[in-house]
Amino acid sequence: MKLSDRVQAMQNSPIRKFNPMAAEAKAQGTKIYHLNIGQPDIVTPSVFMESIKGFDQKVLAYAESPGLPELQDSIIDYFKTFDMSLDRKDILITSGGSEALTLVFLSLINPGDEVIVAEPYYTNYLTFIQAADGVIKPVTTYAEDGYKYAYMDRLEAAVTEKTKMISIVNPGNPTGCILSREDMRVICDFAKKHDLWILADEVYREFAYDGREMTSFGQYEDVADRVIIIDSISKRFSACGARIGCLISKNADLMANVMKIAMGRLCCPTLEMVGATALYKLDPAFFSEVRAEYEKRRNVSYEALKKIPGVVCEQPGGAFYITCKMPVENTEDLLVFLLKEFRENNETVMYAPAEGFYATPGLGKNELRIAYILNAEDMARGIELLGKGIEAYKAAGHK
Amino acid sequence: MKLSDRVQAMQNSPIRKFNPMAAEAKAQGTKIYHLNIGQPDIVTPSVFMESIKGFDQKVLAYAESPGLPELQDSIIDYFKTFDMSLDRKDILITSGGSEALTLVFLSLINPGDEVIVAEPYYTNYLTFIQAADGVIKPVTTYAEDGYKYAYMDRLEAAVTEKTKMISIVNPGNPTGCILSREDMRVICDFAKKHDLWILADEVYREFAYDGREMTSFGQYEDVADRVIIIDSISKRFSACGARIGCLISKNADLMANVMKIAMGRLCCPTLEMVGATALYKLDPAFFSEVRAEYEKRRNVSYEALKKIPGVVCEQPGGAFYITCKMPVENTEDLLVFLLKEFRENNETVMYAPAEGFYATPGLGKNELRIAYILNAEDMARGIELLGKGIEAYKAAGHK
Repeated sequence: MKLSDRVQAMQNSPIRKFNPMAAEAKAQGTKIYHLNIGQPDIVTPSVFMESIKGFDQKVLAYAESPGLPELQDSIIDYFKTFDMSLDRKDILITSGGSEALTLVFLSLINPGDEVIVAEPYYTNYLTFIQAADGVIKPVTTYAEDGYKYAYMDRLEAAVTEKTKMISIVNPGNPTGCILSREDMRVICDFAKKHDLWILADEVYREFAYDGREMTSFGQYEDVADRVIIIDSISKRFSACGARIGCLISKNADLMANVMKIAMGRLCCPTLEMVGATALYKLDPAFFSEVRAEYEKRRNVSYEALKKIPGVVCEQPGGAFYITCKMPVENTEDLLVFLLKEFRENNETVMYAPAEGFYATPGLGKNELRIAYILNAEDMARGIELLGKGIEAYKAAGHK
Repeated sequence: MKLSDRVQAMQNSPIRKFNPMAAEAKAQGTKIYHLNIGQPDIVTPSVFMESIKGFDQKVLAYAESPGLPELQDSIIDYFKTFDMSLDRKDILITSGGSEALTLVFLSLINPGDEVIVAEPYYTNYLTFIQAADGVIKPVTTYAEDGYKYAYMDRLEAAVTEKTKMISIVNPGNPTGCILSREDMRVICDFAKKHDLWILADEVYREFAYDGREMTSFGQYEDVADRVIIIDSISKRFSACGARIGCLISKNADLMANVMKIAMGRLCCPTLEMVGATALYKLDPAFFSEVRAEYEKRRNVSYEALKKIPGVVCEQPGGAFYITCKMPVENTEDLLVFLLKEFRENNETVMYAPAEGFYATPGLGKNELRIAYILNAEDMARGIELLGKGIEAYKAAGHK
């Protein structure tokens, strides 16, 4: 009556594992600034609930396994603004980007196969890859260099005969690093040279700042057969609780095989697909407004972070995260201190410690990720608390 | 740029793969009696949509990974009527029973581990087990014997050193076979003797006819640490499109490890969990009414099937399926004939061919599954069409 080796090898989510400690602090009346999870505070556009309220079928029946055709069509239209021409058969609707990732790894990875991933990485990638008995082959990146990874020599150093794919989040979680057109070209050439799949998680596509272009790996014709795009309404439309994402690929063989698993799980929730259909049709003006708001939050957050002595980070160009090196030895210990001991006006702050974002043992212990998903004022206060918390932590004799 | 061996070894859903052919027939104006899929026509209780419409949070945020506490609580209350005492920590809310099954197999199965399953089985089990690189070890059952499988000698003949668990659907899909208390005792003793997990998929729990008792493996104290229950609102409340199910176990080690994967996929859709909370609170009178309706449909369907010369089946005691042996050599060929060539008053019928429900090569070719999910009149007409279709099929020279 044993458990599987794979599940025992998995870690607890380094983002969510401190939640019970936070719940305890809240129960004592402490206000916590949650900079630890990518849960935006932006109001979900009202068309989402309105279209769901309009659903009037008497029987809430199974949907077709690939997803509601209306939703596929509104995704097709959305991608036209990126000069991409998709068909319904290229799109599988999934339960969030998370399910799309699980399906991809199960469909591509044999036990022991390697996936090249820049570290620090979105920690759940490790879980999804381990679920398929795959292995992360990290390309280490550095705070001093803005966590950039599109260097041909560093990528090539990670290739072995077991390498099956390169997995990218662009704009990046947890670093906010965003690829330029030149960077994307490097990655396409790298994938072609070594005959690799490119998994492009682009759920933060619209979160590109300082006038940067919004891009997609789906725009590169010469790698069309090897690109798999992950999309999601969670961040873009502040609809994380809807759990609607999709997997997009022009590779018919891949899609046919992914569909075998997708048929097994039957379908995604009908109502949420109805709501998502309306969201994908929103005027791009919605994004511009949201983008401006996040750019402001990023600026405020970055400025506040730089005020903390010893913090190392570059200003990130996209998504809504900043990862940085902190002037402490262990950010998990610091977080426990913040949740259990530190208070100012009965307030404290929470972030995601970065050690769990690294495959290379020993790295990331002194790093953390902040999500700038609160309004500018709250971000400033949250980071101020972080600075004061570090002072108190050190004053208490910690390093 | 290859796909994984596991996905290539998977089959297309034998239930859904004929859908394109059906769509073609419909496009030509043909009415199809869909006896092929477990999609009930019972109206989804209105409290589901009403409670969702009452959801008024401005931001549709991530839920906690284990699920909405209110939903867990209403599941706890529901199981009290089965004399089962559950805690929140015993319950993980999942995207339908399907996700619960995937999580269980990924958490228990190492590559090559064997799962004992009575064949014919719900075909998606094969997909879920293959996704975890596991192997189905079938215990063959027979139409002449009502597809019973709770025989200690037959179960023991399937045990090897690779056996990890026994997987049960009770009441059964696709056979409608239902376990007596004595049968359940046999299975519990078998699992204890060979130190196996018991996976009990009980999504059809309330669909027990002829006054049979509704049961759960959760009622057997002596196997509490090895039982994993799968539940779902899909069939019970005719809410298949909601995709809300759950995984229940008193084994804390299992639950802690399953949660690692569940945290990776973040959470289930919030709105659907709100609706499901209301459904689990429905008065049991709802089930009695639905049960009486299905019992009527079963009776009509069974009578209609027995009128077709050469059909072999026992009257099933639960769920809403009948699997039977047909007087043709290949029910997939027959289905193609029904969808492409046979019409009466521009009507035809669709069922699920059973070959894909068997692991043993060659078995099930002459069997099929019918879901009695239409009203009694439509069931009678659908099965009448099946009988006439077989006549036409044979008249056309097929065997």
